[in-house]
Amino acid sequence: MNADSIRSLFEQVRKGELTPDAAVDRLRHLPFEDLDFAKVDHHRALRVGMPEVILAEGKTPAQTAAIFARLAQHGGNVLATRADKKQYAAVKKKVRRAEYRELARAIVLHRDPMEYGKGTIAVVSAGTSDIPVAEEAVVTAELMGNKVEHFYDVGVAGIHRLLANREALSKARVVVVCAGMEGALPSVVGGMLGVPVIAVPTSIGYGASFAGLAALLGMLNSCASNVSVVNIDNGFGAGYVASLINRLP
Amino acid sequence: MNADSIRSLFEQVRKGELTPDAAVDRLRHLPFEDLDFAKVDHHRALRVGMPEVILAEGKTPAQTAAIFARLAQHGGNVLATRADKKQYAAVKKKVRRAEYRELARAIVLHRDPMEYGKGTIAVVSAGTSDIPVAEEAVVTAELMGNKVEHFYDVGVAGIHRLLANREALSKARVVVVCAGMEGALPSVVGGMLGVPVIAVPTSIGYGASFAGLAALLGMLNSCASNVSVVNIDNGFGAGYVASLINRLP
Amino acid sequence: MNADSIRSLFEQVRKGELTPDAAVDRLRHLPFEDLDFAKVDHHRALRVGMPEVILAEGKTPAQTAAIFARLAQHGGNVLATRADKKQYAAVKKKVRRAEYRELARAIVLHRDPMEYGKGTIAVVSAGTSDIPVAEEAVVTAELMGNKVEHFYDVGVAGIHRLLANREALSKARVVVVCAGMEGALPSVVGGMLGVPVIAVPTSIGYGASFAGLAALLGMLNSCASNVSVVNIDNGFGAGYVASLINRLP
Amino acid sequence: MNADSIRSLFEQVRKGELTPDAAVDRLRHLPFEDLDFAKVDHHRALRVGMPEVILAEGKTPAQTAAIFARLAQHGGNVLATRADKKQYAAVKKKVRRAEYRELARAIVLHRDPMEYGKGTIAVVSAGTSDIPVAEEAVVTAELMGNKVEHFYDVGVAGIHRLLANREALSKARVVVVCAGMEGALPSVVGGMLGVPVIAVPTSIGYGASFAGLAALLGMLNSCASNVSVVNIDNGFGAGYVASLINRLP
Amino acid sequence: MNADSIRSLFEQVRKGELTPDAAVDRLRHLPFEDLDFAKVDHHRALRVGMPEVILAEGKTPAQTAAIFARLAQHGGNVLATRADKKQYAAVKKKVRRAEYRELARAIVLHRDPMEYGKGTIAVVSAGTSDIPVAEEAVVTAELMGNKVEHFYDVGVAGIHRLLANREALSKARVVVVCAGMEGALPSVVGGMLGVPVIAVPTSIGYGASFAGLAALLGMLNSCASNVSVVNIDNGFGAGYVASLINRLP
Amino acid sequence: MNADSIRSLFEQVRKGELTPDAAVDRLRHLPFEDLDFAKVDHHRALRVGMPEVILAEGKTPAQTAAIFARLAQHGGNVLATRADKKQYAAVKKKVRRAEYRELARAIVLHRDPMEYGKGTIAVVSAGTSDIPVAEEAVVTAELMGNKVEHFYDVGVAGIHRLLANREALSKARVVVVCAGMEGALPSVVGGMLGVPVIAVPTSIGYGASFAGLAALLGMLNSCASNVSVVNIDNGFGAGYVASLINRLP
Amino acid sequence: MNADSIRSLFEQVRKGELTPDAAVDRLRHLPFEDLDFAKVDHHRALRVGMPEVILAEGKTPAQTAAIFARLAQHGGNVLATRADKKQYAAVKKKVRRAEYRELARAIVLHRDPMEYGKGTIAVVSAGTSDIPVAEEAVVTAELMGNKVEHFYDVGVAGIHRLLANREALSKARVVVVCAGMEGALPSVVGGMLGVPVIAVPTSIGYGASFAGLAALLGMLNSCASNVSVVNIDNGFGAGYVASLINRLP
Amino acid sequence: MNADSIRSLFEQVRKGELTPDAAVDRLRHLPFEDLDFAKVDHHRALRVGMPEVILAEGKTPAQTAAIFARLAQHGGNVLATRADKKQYAAVKKKVRRAEYRELARAIVLHRDPMEYGKGTIAVVSAGTSDIPVAEEAVVTAELMGNKVEHFYDVGVAGIHRLLANREALSKARVVVVCAGMEGALPSVVGGMLGVPVIAVPTSIGYGASFAGLAALLGMLNSCASNVSVVNIDNGFGAGYVASLINRLP
Repeated sequence: MNADSIRSLFEQVRKGELTPDAAVDRLRHLPFEDLDFAKVDHHRALRVGMPEVILAEGKTPAQTAAIFARLAQHGGNVLATRADKKQYAAVKKKVRRAEYRELARAIVLHRDPMEYGKGTIAVVSAGTSDIPVAEEAVVTAELMGNKVEHFYDVGVAGIHRLLANREALSKARVVVVCAGMEGALPSVVGGMLGVPVIAVPTSIGYGASFAGLAALLGMLNSCASNVSVVNIDNGFGAGYVASLINRLP
Repeated sequence: MNADSIRSLFEQVRKGELTPDAAVDRLRHLPFEDLDFAKVDHHRALRVGMPEVILAEGKTPAQTAAIFARLAQHGGNVLATRADKKQYAAVKKKVRRAEYRELARAIVLHRDPMEYGKGTIAVVSAGTSDIPVAEEAVVTAELMGNKVEHFYDVGVAGIHRLLANREALSKARVVVVCAGMEGALPSVVGGMLGVPVIAVPTSIGYGASFAGLAALLGMLNSCASNVSVVNIDNGFGAGYVASLINRLP
Repeated sequence: MNADSIRSLFEQVRKGELTPDAAVDRLRHLPFEDLDFAKVDHHRALRVGMPEVILAEGKTPAQTAAIFARLAQHGGNVLATRADKKQYAAVKKKVRRAEYRELARAIVLHRDPMEYGKGTIAVVSAGTSDIPVAEEAVVTAELMGNKVEHFYDVGVAGIHRLLANREALSKARVVVVCAGMEGALPSVVGGMLGVPVIAVPTSIGYGASFAGLAALLGMLNSCASNVSVVNIDNGFGAGYVASLINRLP
Repeated sequence: MNADSIRSLFEQVRKGELTPDAAVDRLRHLPFEDLDFAKVDHHRALRVGMPEVILAEGKTPAQTAAIFARLAQHGGNVLATRADKKQYAAVKKKVRRAEYRELARAIVLHRDPMEYGKGTIAVVSAGTSDIPVAEEAVVTAELMGNKVEHFYDVGVAGIHRLLANREALSKARVVVVCAGMEGALPSVVGGMLGVPVIAVPTSIGYGASFAGLAALLGMLNSCASNVSVVNIDNGFGAGYVASLINRLP
Repeated sequence: MNADSIRSLFEQVRKGELTPDAAVDRLRHLPFEDLDFAKVDHHRALRVGMPEVILAEGKTPAQTAAIFARLAQHGGNVLATRADKKQYAAVKKKVRRAEYRELARAIVLHRDPMEYGKGTIAVVSAGTSDIPVAEEAVVTAELMGNKVEHFYDVGVAGIHRLLANREALSKARVVVVCAGMEGALPSVVGGMLGVPVIAVPTSIGYGASFAGLAALLGMLNSCASNVSVVNIDNGFGAGYVASLINRLP
Repeated sequence: MNADSIRSLFEQVRKGELTPDAAVDRLRHLPFEDLDFAKVDHHRALRVGMPEVILAEGKTPAQTAAIFARLAQHGGNVLATRADKKQYAAVKKKVRRAEYRELARAIVLHRDPMEYGKGTIAVVSAGTSDIPVAEEAVVTAELMGNKVEHFYDVGVAGIHRLLANREALSKARVVVVCAGMEGALPSVVGGMLGVPVIAVPTSIGYGASFAGLAALLGMLNSCASNVSVVNIDNGFGAGYVASLINRLP
Repeated sequence: MNADSIRSLFEQVRKGELTPDAAVDRLRHLPFEDLDFAKVDHHRALRVGMPEVILAEGKTPAQTAAIFARLAQHGGNVLATRADKKQYAAVKKKVRRAEYRELARAIVLHRDPMEYGKGTIAVVSAGTSDIPVAEEAVVTAELMGNKVEHFYDVGVAGIHRLLANREALSKARVVVVCAGMEGALPSVVGGMLGVPVIAVPTSIGYGASFAGLAALLGMLNSCASNVSVVNIDNGFGAGYVASLINRLP
Repeated sequence: MNADSIRSLFEQVRKGELTPDAAVDRLRHLPFEDLDFAKVDHHRALRVGMPEVILAEGKTPAQTAAIFARLAQHGGNVLATRADKKQYAAVKKKVRRAEYRELARAIVLHRDPMEYGKGTIAVVSAGTSDIPVAEEAVVTAELMGNKVEHFYDVGVAGIHRLLANREALSKARVVVVCAGMEGALPSVVGGMLGVPVIAVPTSIGYGASFAGLAALLGMLNSCASNVSVVNIDNGFGAGYVASLINRLP
């Protein structure tokens, strides 16, 4: 809703095509529509050209399915993150084409085949246990129309594993790095490359990892200047930001 | 140092242009050179096409000046962040063209007039007190060859101030948002726009702001998906990441 | 128990209507009565003109039912918060008219139809997942004799959803705002309105939300001056404070 | 800026009294005006009928004076909190009638003699050292047109001191309670009274008080239901919220 | 020193090579004996004249029973804290006279009827939910030979409930106060009395109580000087310290 | 103020010796008297038979002196803790006999020569740097009429130093133990003795000592059951509690 | 992969035994091989002469077994830590000789009988509940070819138990000390001995132990200079470091 | 045991009543001697064959000098860490041969030329600002008779700088790694080498580094198994532990 659309409203009023009351009303009702328990925002989807996303965690299967189905009516891709199999079953009943990406814990409705990204997004994980978070980033980026390449289990304690992938990594336009424990991998990757690095701390670890806090703090204090950080285990957010960067013209 | 340059080393050896020992030696000594107290990394500057940056805080004026001068010999821009006036005086004696950007607490040597950015970077601050951090982002982005536009004092408690700038903001290719206290501004800006938002928590606030921790946590938990975060008061990092994004082809 | 009632005791003694020992005794036994495991405070209920409230969490069904039944004997409304269905079943056996408000996890005995509030209390929630906490505030306020209007899923990442409700919100006499994650909503709502805003951080979120800590800190640092805060997930407290404000003559 | 004023804009356009462009422009420029470093929000002051407030801390004397003077041009009261004597001196040069309330560290311009409050606000402090925070609440409430009564040094370790003021306290329409260390006073005051209590944790204490954190946590966990909390040392916020409550019709 | 060396002591006594007195003396001055998984310390029991205590939590029923039985052979009282019913069942099979105090989650073997305490220990709890911790203190103190009187549900939000017990409380020689949430009760009790107060924070509460941290910090910052603190939920420790104080000659 | 004194009031009223109004008045005014900025509580001093104590930190020299002088009028000992030399100078002008105990940072007026303690209080410190806190405990205990013996620099890393004092320590009736860094000393001392141990964490240390937090947590988790804890650096509190214990009949 | 092996690559190229491309390829592929979900690093095992270790926690039984089996093909010992019985069952099917050390929660394949250690490693635990962590250190050290002696239940509250083992302990070449609660044992052991002490905080404790944080902080602040620390419950890491120290020539 | 008892030992030797060997033996088995404010532990120095160390921070120049001088009388090396120039001046007056190592903030008396270490200790630092902590480790290790080699400014963001030193590093027998900010360097160094690595977090950084906490947590969670950790900024401890390891026969 920009100045142009408002100006056009005024124009319509000036021309008598619209009464002032109708104009006020239209002004108010454009951006969204009302479901009982959630205001689904088609407007936002249209504006940014991206699928609506549902955080399934903390919602009942019924709620998840209702929102998912509603969004599915409007075309475009739909993504439910942190979804379990019960939620998927409920969605599946309403939206036949929905699929479950188990490793990433994601329900996806992938209808838009368009490639929006300009280059490749690399998704890197430090250890085997970080893969679910990395896969959430992968699924998100794929659903948003990107080519994605992944590099798993290349943590810093065996630096040669990372160095061996240096050349492949250097071809990415933007890089997502997932790591738990000390969260050191984004600093090393960031130092090796000249592109934006989105760091995702994971809750992998024990004791003084404090469920990802150690990795989070490590990444925020990265000595590599090209690193920015998202929330612990937020693979979705990293994939989303990387996609936005990758589609910049 | 990629596979190509290594392969060329092997080629030279095969052709007898280089002995194996000399090749090993060259392999080892290519990337950097040794100063007494700091290994200045020209290699990195060349690789990423950006100025070397010095974190002046915690360095003596003499150390700051020595590193700054050394880097100045190699062409390109030089930036010293978190520098005070004493450090600037020491630098100025060695590098005549260095300038001090007081509000941003930065020493800059701006020689490269090239514009690397593809669009405009917007830098937004919530309050008057957040401006120094925002200015650090501005200086960094300018020094890295970007057009920058700033929007200051548009915090969420007076949402109309932000809304009034909506149109101007929507023209940016990437946005940096600096906020202290509750750090809510990036969420609102992020929700309004479809481009990457780099959030910078500032240490502005008192009591339960815990020197920026409240703002940091707020930003990491942003409900807007296009937000990633850098360290508290890290205007430099935000400007750097935004510049990398803005120069993507 | 104010100076008047004490003075009247002295008067009775002076007139010989009461022995000193009986006076001392009455002084001591007025305010409360003794149950085995909890001193139910009828006195307080009388003084503030409000129902006694039981925090059911951490009590056995039997304990919950015993206290509930006892309080039910004295007239007025009774509210048990954070109650599960087992506790409700136990209460229901003793107090037939008790009802269970599932979404709010509350057992209510609503007998007093009087309207004590002078205006409307608005209860706002940022996301779908915050609704249980918001509903606890709603139930509390209704039980205390208030008109309540709710506005759900109007979080800051889609600021137009909030703006669309601006006019309706501006009619409230006091507003309760529930939000998890970054907890930014109270600041925006507070900035839009000129009435007291009671902010309730919820434990909705993950990772660096630290079970509501991020939202709590955000709200405490609100740049809107009309915001005060209650404990994480404390919908009851918010509804209670809002009711007290709304009944001020 | 409500629906009515927007509708009237549309009406003017319809009648031809205003061109669409001028209407858009007016829509955009109504609420605030632009200073160089801060967007002073007269609009907000008008809307809520209260003085603009400046947090002086972290601003230079010159900045403080410039904003203060600007606001003083528009009539009404002006308040600068956390101001030191240097800031006051700078303000005094520009605004002759400004006064310094030393104990409260506040610069005030008190021109509006109107009484907006419906009753009395009580401000209570636990110890002698909490008085500066309490005084900030007092000054704020007075400047917003309230009768204020204070009760100092009535902490919980000498409960009889508080009990002796019970009757006086019970006459207040809303109560502000400031306490450091364990922050227990709001619970006791809250339990004694049937009106809203605004709790202010102070940074008074040492060791495990962690600069007010202990008091803050204590107050958030208050077992008295009528307590809501503001930030550590935020006497202004407490006075502001209390004033809003007290002026409710 | 293992079972063999103790056996040899008995052998020497049997043979008349050592008087019983000399054997006891030798027993007291040698440090301990070896069980497979735990070094049971009879010596300590002898030295301080108190029962050995087992923290059952984190031990298997079999381990609990083995240690309990071993200690039971030596006379005196035995106490296992934080024990569940499975552990009790295992103990009961080996030690018939052992009893389970369910509310206190304690297994006790109470054989020594002696009264060691010089006066009465008062155990106070703020709310109904704090009773299990309070009961652990009660059981401990009783097992150590003290008269104990308890005062439950006398929290600070209803200060008259505490005041009504003032006289009874003032007869105690030492007081244990258990409270969760804001943990304010020890300050009020401490201010009312002139004897040592042992404060026990409990994990009762939610949200910003952080599992007892708020209460713990509150108690450590108590403005009453006669308060010292033990670990969260450590009813045993409080009962133990109170008993030591009460038996001082 | 116990039931007896209240009963006697009623008796006086019954006999006509006192009007009801006068009785109410007396009831209200007995316990304390009003200074401008602090309600000095003589009543409490009388009740517990101990000197009033002033926490000088955070008070101006003038305030400190005024309270000190007022208290000095009523006889008995007076103690100002955490006092600097400026505060002492101000006190000295008003109260000639006041003395400054520099190491303990305490101003004392020691007039009451009575010995209230039944035995000896031992004050133990782990390192040289903990001595100021230990001395505050010593001064407090001496002023409250106790014999005190100190044992300094006997930390756990040289356990033989502690063992060499074992016999001397075992003669104390109650022990205060001050330690910073890991705060292990109270556990070892507690395990060696059968009397109450008051542990005082000190802020001595650096890095992960977090200004005494490490020592505080260590002491709260002591595996010795006879340990209770006071606030970081709270030598006064420890000396006070120890004195109360030592004077128990 | 040292300079020698690289030099030999260059030599082979010079002699024409290898093409440059093949040399580059070999350089890249030497250190590791690719499994689907984890890059198993034989290279590292060869380099440090130690078994590969798997952190089983967070891996499925199938993943655990696949990695375990793969590593078992290359000879040498294999260790899976934090393994449960289901994981063991899966491993056992693939690797018949694998054994489960239940107390240590470890799956071991012990084939290399060589003794690499030069002396004895002592493993000390404070309490019975710390034994699982201690046993993990024991198993690790044994699998790495060391003689290990353990000393369990010798915590600081009964210092004589530790002193009784002083002589035996003083024969160790390096000592691992496991302790929960206040974590004081490493300081005392460190002070008694002149060899390196590896401290392992355990999560044993409750309340303010914060799952091992108290012990961790205590150990980091140890006043004994020969103490270094590993993560909470990291028995493996302690055994590993101790083994490296013990095998130093 | 004071100076007198030591003197009497010498007297007995002089008179021929005791052989020197017997006297030394007796000296070793008696615990310590008494200075006024600190119990200097010669015994410990003899036992572990190392210099006594003074933590100068928090001691007055006079105290520092007194302890330093006393220790200097007994031969061997003396080290005062965290000493400023004033403390050095005081020491210098009493001990002429004392030297000040400014960068390391250490006062040293280096008299014992013996080399106790079996190999070389490598000290590595991530950045220029970490050098003071690294130098404290260097001085400590040198004073304890080790060959030390340092590698400064080789942080992980420029991984080639570290790789270039790989060969030199691989010759060390034990490695100390100092790093602030994210503290990732020990993990990378640990993964590259097969010897013990002592990690020292430094307080270098800002914002979310929380004065070294981020680095500390990162190091404790290192994915390299050969890493153990000392306190923040504890260069001395790291040098000490490394020395103990290096002198193992």
